[in-house]
Amino acid sequence: MADDRGGEVVDVRWHAHAVSREDRERAAGHRGCVLWFTGLSGCGKSTVANAVDRLLYERGCRTFLLDGDNVRHGLNAAPALLEARHGAEFARRFGLGFGSQDREENIRRIGAVAELFVQAGIIALTAFISPYRRDRDAVRAVLPAGDFVEIYVRAPLEVCESRDPKGLYKKARAGEIKGFTGIDDPYEEPLQPEIMLESASHQPDALAAEVIAWLQRAGKLAA
Amino acid sequence: MADDRGGEVVDVRWHAHAVSREDRERAAGHRGCVLWFTGLSGCGKSTVANAVDRLLYERGCRTFLLDGDNVRHGLNAAPALLEARHGAEFARRFGLGFGSQDREENIRRIGAVAELFVQAGIIALTAFISPYRRDRDAVRAVLPAGDFVEIYVRAPLEVCESRDPKGLYKKARAGEIKGFTGIDDPYEEPLQPEIMLESASHQPDALAAEVIAWLQRAGKLAA
Repeated sequence: MADDRGGEVVDVRWHAHAVSREDRERAAGHRGCVLWFTGLSGCGKSTVANAVDRLLYERGCRTFLLDGDNVRHGLNAAPALLEARHGAEFARRFGLGFGSQDREENIRRIGAVAELFVQAGIIALTAFISPYRRDRDAVRAVLPAGDFVEIYVRAPLEVCESRDPKGLYKKARAGEIKGFTGIDDPYEEPLQPEIMLESASHQPDALAAEVIAWLQRAGKLAA
Repeated sequence: MADDRGGEVVDVRWHAHAVSREDRERAAGHRGCVLWFTGLSGCGKSTVANAVDRLLYERGCRTFLLDGDNVRHGLNAAPALLEARHGAEFARRFGLGFGSQDREENIRRIGAVAELFVQAGIIALTAFISPYRRDRDAVRAVLPAGDFVEIYVRAPLEVCESRDPKGLYKKARAGEIKGFTGIDDPYEEPLQPEIMLESASHQPDALAAEVIAWLQRAGKLAA
């Protein structure tokens, strides 16, 4: 077996020319990290996360936003979405519903994907209710120290319920949705979030600016 | 509830300022896509994928390489890795082993994550045996047309077995590993791969250069 230089390929050493996280961060001009937005449905996490994403994008940062829209249709698809292509038994096993273990696995996978984005030198933003402290702490634990930035977007339940952008609180109050966070399932507030945002009293753009300022103070972003 | 401009926050419209895939690709200076390397264990997919990754990195492209090293410890962890943090029942349900469904879900999740990287304007490289045509085609099907670039790294079984970088063929021949691709489980060759690389007769760097040239011809990369 001659290789393209006439040598014997079996003797060739197959080196990996890996690109490291540091290489990727140098090219990006900033560190990778996870901005983990958490809070009640309707607290504004997705809006603020999108605003932060936009501000970072405008500064030339490499970012990506993980949210229900891009995760629940693919990676964490419901059983019904998997069934057509993979069959009923497969869908039952690997599809994610809204049971307790399913929600735990939902957050675990999102954390694992966020970790991959961080390895790629990217600022990964996530916008999920992620109501359980244990699940958020588990994501923090798999990431290198300092890479998990917990951002609690706080608003009183009444405010979130009055916004009710998707009509979910109404359905939960009517008993059409069971286990809804804030109604018949708990939201466990972060005990020591890196960033606390008060969304009942501040505009999304002002909250987004707070996040950017924090990233600069923390040395994750150039001032 | 006064907002920071003295208005009523309940009347504020919470717009999303989303960054689109096109925005991200413009910033990157290239299109996102998946370079899906497939082939027998020992065929050199990982080596060639790393070499391509390095070449793309040196051209300033935004890339990321998904392989067993970064996927099997987190996103697609084995049951034993999940058990400590999530408990035995959870680990049994969501942990991935090497059974038929597990391998299918392994590839499905990798495809879904690659899709997220593509949405982020990144060139995602994957290096997995991915022996079943159906599983590779399922990944192709979830991606927008043209975004899945199947790269078959071909080498005769004897060559791969003689390289045996991890000693896996030896174990498979000894019956210590069951269902090993090429020995007692089939490798289904791609029927129409976008790129075919002959790794028994060419050096990894030459094969990597072939991939770059293909990406240029396909308009995915500037010439």
